[in-house]
Amino acid sequence: MEYRKLKDQDEDENGGGDDIESRKPLSVTNVPTLGAATVDWSKWKLKIVVVVALTLLTSSQGILIVWSKRNGKYAYSVTTSNFMVEALKCGISLLALARIWKSEGVTEDNRLSTTLDEVIVYPIPALLYLVKNLLQYYILEHVDAPGYQILKNLNIISTGVLYRIILKKKLSNIQWAAFILLCVGCSTTQLKTNSDHVLQTPVEGWLMAIVMALLSGFAGVYTEAIMKKRPSRNINVQNFWLYVFGMVFNAVAIVTQDFDAVMNKGFFYGYSFITILMILNHALSGLAVSMVMKHADNIVKVYSTSVAMLFTAFVCYFLFGFKLSLTFILGTITVAVSVYLHAVGKQR
Amino acid sequence: MEYRKLKDQDEDENGGGDDIESRKPLSVTNVPTLGAATVDWSKWKLKIVVVVALTLLTSSQGILIVWSKRNGKYAYSVTTSNFMVEALKCGISLLALARIWKSEGVTEDNRLSTTLDEVIVYPIPALLYLVKNLLQYYILEHVDAPGYQILKNLNIISTGVLYRIILKKKLSNIQWAAFILLCVGCSTTQLKTNSDHVLQTPVEGWLMAIVMALLSGFAGVYTEAIMKKRPSRNINVQNFWLYVFGMVFNAVAIVTQDFDAVMNKGFFYGYSFITILMILNHALSGLAVSMVMKHADNIVKVYSTSVAMLFTAFVCYFLFGFKLSLTFILGTITVAVSVYLHAVGKQR
Repeated sequence: MEYRKLKDQDEDENGGGDDIESRKPLSVTNVPTLGAATVDWSKWKLKIVVVVALTLLTSSQGILIVWSKRNGKYAYSVTTSNFMVEALKCGISLLALARIWKSEGVTEDNRLSTTLDEVIVYPIPALLYLVKNLLQYYILEHVDAPGYQILKNLNIISTGVLYRIILKKKLSNIQWAAFILLCVGCSTTQLKTNSDHVLQTPVEGWLMAIVMALLSGFAGVYTEAIMKKRPSRNINVQNFWLYVFGMVFNAVAIVTQDFDAVMNKGFFYGYSFITILMILNHALSGLAVSMVMKHADNIVKVYSTSVAMLFTAFVCYFLFGFKLSLTFILGTITVAVSVYLHAVGKQR
Repeated sequence: MEYRKLKDQDEDENGGGDDIESRKPLSVTNVPTLGAATVDWSKWKLKIVVVVALTLLTSSQGILIVWSKRNGKYAYSVTTSNFMVEALKCGISLLALARIWKSEGVTEDNRLSTTLDEVIVYPIPALLYLVKNLLQYYILEHVDAPGYQILKNLNIISTGVLYRIILKKKLSNIQWAAFILLCVGCSTTQLKTNSDHVLQTPVEGWLMAIVMALLSGFAGVYTEAIMKKRPSRNINVQNFWLYVFGMVFNAVAIVTQDFDAVMNKGFFYGYSFITILMILNHALSGLAVSMVMKHADNIVKVYSTSVAMLFTAFVCYFLFGFKLSLTFILGTITVAVSVYLHAVGKQR
């Protein structure tokens, strides 16, 4: 109950109100803005490392998927590999914690034990993703897979809107324009010759796509709120609890979807070297996302993963001889301009 | 020789140098910037009327072409209709001048007589367009017509670059970003399923496209320089001389290309009601372009005509049931964001 008490004291000092850190000027200490007088370079360096890591990991994710698909379909159960990703992230977080305990000792901020009040919010992002993944099956009854890829870009807009509404952080007009361009640019890069099908999506399909975008955006923004609610709390503890619930939900998925296969063929049936690489990659990307949420924000995450998508295509172009279409090139230019505008458009 | 004298005096006062009005702060008196203290509303009103007129006229141009093509191919000689457009613009300029002479009398600024020094630059835009039109035949040996339409968007970039270099006017970083987006957005709207052919354009094709873009941009920027070099000179006199040379060059085109047809079937063979409408429209658009060059600039012209192109497609969608593709919609959003960024990106 100590955390609750600490938080209550804090709230009393601030006049009470909502938990989200927008009330406190954390953005100055945690996420310094470019050109501000109080730029904290060690924090900035961390932010840059984390963003580059996320971009590279997300890129290699796409490349691994392409690579593995070139060797045929996956022979393993996706639910067990998802479980392994969560377990691995949990394990890495615990290892990191053990090192910290050794050097710094157990403190209020890095102890693993928690309170109901702290932990109660942790299952929510996992639950939101579960609902989103269920909806995905229904939406694919109305839209084909490439069309679904295009509709998924609505996530970008929903993340921006929810980031503004829930985290109460402001984007400048130019940054909003940049965000619209990011969505348009990403969609353009994914256009295929038959993409116009998407326009014939029935109203139910559009509504579901919008609901999915909102769920996905909400899960991201909620995770950021959780990570930043207790800024001094060690990220590895926060990760541990986040991923424990991820393990629980994925265990449920194994039981409901792949129970027979796992029982007959074993938990690790069909695992290969590339499966292990992919699990490793997903785990590290997941940890990078967490760090981006803690030290940067959802907007940075959206930009990193979008740029990673384009980067993947360029690597595939050089590595596997994929063709770059004109739509891809025009979309990439739009995304590049969007990144530039986001950077120069910071509120002055 | 009076103008030369006037100009020389002016140059002496300014320490000599180039003729182009960048040295004098004309942009303050002629093209007031939004938010400036000295906004001259009557000038602003004129600017808005001219820009709206150009946009509507360019839109209806596209619609007329579509409309006329629905009734089959043109039966008339395009060179004679081009000549008629120039003649009509000349006539309208003279009529406007006659009215002004009646009310204000003949002054230094509105008299038709000119000096070699003033008139010597007027054939240059017409000549540049002639060279560009000749190059067009060669470029079409390397690129197909839809691909050529896409390459033509390089005009947007070349206009911006030449506007900066020749007229020495600055665009803010955000306005440059907006200009790139305008080019990308316009190209995106024009993508067809087989547009990727453009990427296979041989180097000669690309070089010619770039040279054409530079010629076209240079013609536009040069016209602006001519119109603004003598800001007090009546626009109708400037138009008259510009269009006289247009008539001369088009007369040469009639003789070299359509001499036999005109001789056998007559000058006005194949003219219909729609031909007359199109000539009228082209003449009025031409006059609107002149006014934009005099009272606004090439950047405004590029935006007007780009927006007009999109406007045309929407009208065709409602009028003729044309389909709007996803690429068109995404490109239109990009252009819209570009217009917004150009407006908010004015240098502060």
